Amino acid sequence: MICHLGVIVDGAPRVVPTAYGRDGDTLYLHGSTGARSLAEAAGREVCVTVTHLDGIVLARSIFHHSVNYRSAMIYGTPRPVTDPGERLAGLRAICEHLAPGRWDIVRRPSRKELAATAVLALSLEEASVKVRQGPPRDEEADYALDVWAGVLPVHQVFGEPIPDPLLRPGIPPSGIPGR
Amino acid sequence: MICHLGVIVDGAPRVVPTAYGRDGDTLYLHGSTGARSLAEAAGREVCVTVTHLDGIVLARSIFHHSVNYRSAMIYGTPRPVTDPGERLAGLRAICEHLAPGRWDIVRRPSRKELAATAVLALSLEEASVKVRQGPPRDEEADYALDVWAGVLPVHQVFGEPIPDPLLRPGIPPSGIPGR
Repeated sequence: MICHLGVIVDGAPRVVPTAYGRDGDTLYLHGSTGARSLAEAAGREVCVTVTHLDGIVLARSIFHHSVNYRSAMIYGTPRPVTDPGERLAGLRAICEHLAPGRWDIVRRPSRKELAATAVLALSLEEASVKVRQGPPRDEEADYALDVWAGVLPVHQVFGEPIPDPLLRPGIPPSGIPGR
Repeated sequence: MICHLGVIVDGAPRVVPTAYGRDGDTLYLHGSTGARSLAEAAGREVCVTVTHLDGIVLARSIFHHSVNYRSAMIYGTPRPVTDPGERLAGLRAICEHLAPGRWDIVRRPSRKELAATAVLALSLEEASVKVRQGPPRDEEADYALDVWAGVLPVHQVFGEPIPDPLLRPGIPPSGIPGR
């Protein structure tokens, strides 16, 4: 649901969790125009990493303990999005990724809100993917050990929606992702 | 359970998901001695970010959609750990963080395995924490809108353990985190 954006600020790496959206071969990021990491990312090389943790690999030796995961790293130089249409499309992609269905039922961004929002576009052209799946791979001799081995799956799940304390009475739950 | 390690490689940022462990005020990272990102991280500035996604904040306007999260960013220059005792302690911290209870029941690292493993120590001295919690904060006028608003909690949960297909019969489940 979120990515980790790596930028170089004052010569040192900075890794910031942030929302993202995808439209075809373009990844969109957004942030406050006042946010330094996002401002520093425009026109400079970045690395955006998205990781799904799928499980904990419980092996018969410490050495072969591992995690099952799927990870994508995207490298490139983000382009500040200035075209009003693409800015809206980028924001829509980000919002729909996090909260599908909301764009069409809530208030769209005002001119003032749009002016306070920076949108960056990053091509998916240069990317690498790393994956580990499946059971542990132990040393031959260790299969004789009397220890349970396997994979403990890890899932990300939604809990029960928590209504805003300021929600007016009589508004039914709607536009809630996954429902 | 995992962190994202940001390093500068050939002048560009690289963000790699990896396991970590903590012992007091020290964060430990490990990896194959052949892994480039880890090798590049020793003696150079890094940023390690750990993020817990807690919920999706569903507001009455696109602009105020957000996520609830807790995030820690640790900045510093990792020290390669060479002392054999600290190397083992660091590996133990990493293993116990991911899979508590395993260290004492599975085979410990051999001399050959230890030689193939790089361990880095990063002080927690320079770190920053970012948190967002609670309900959406909407514009005054938007509270009149007929749209459900609130928080959709996000949890990371364990599934049913999947035994290794090569598990010998008669070995009961044990040393499984969270059970």
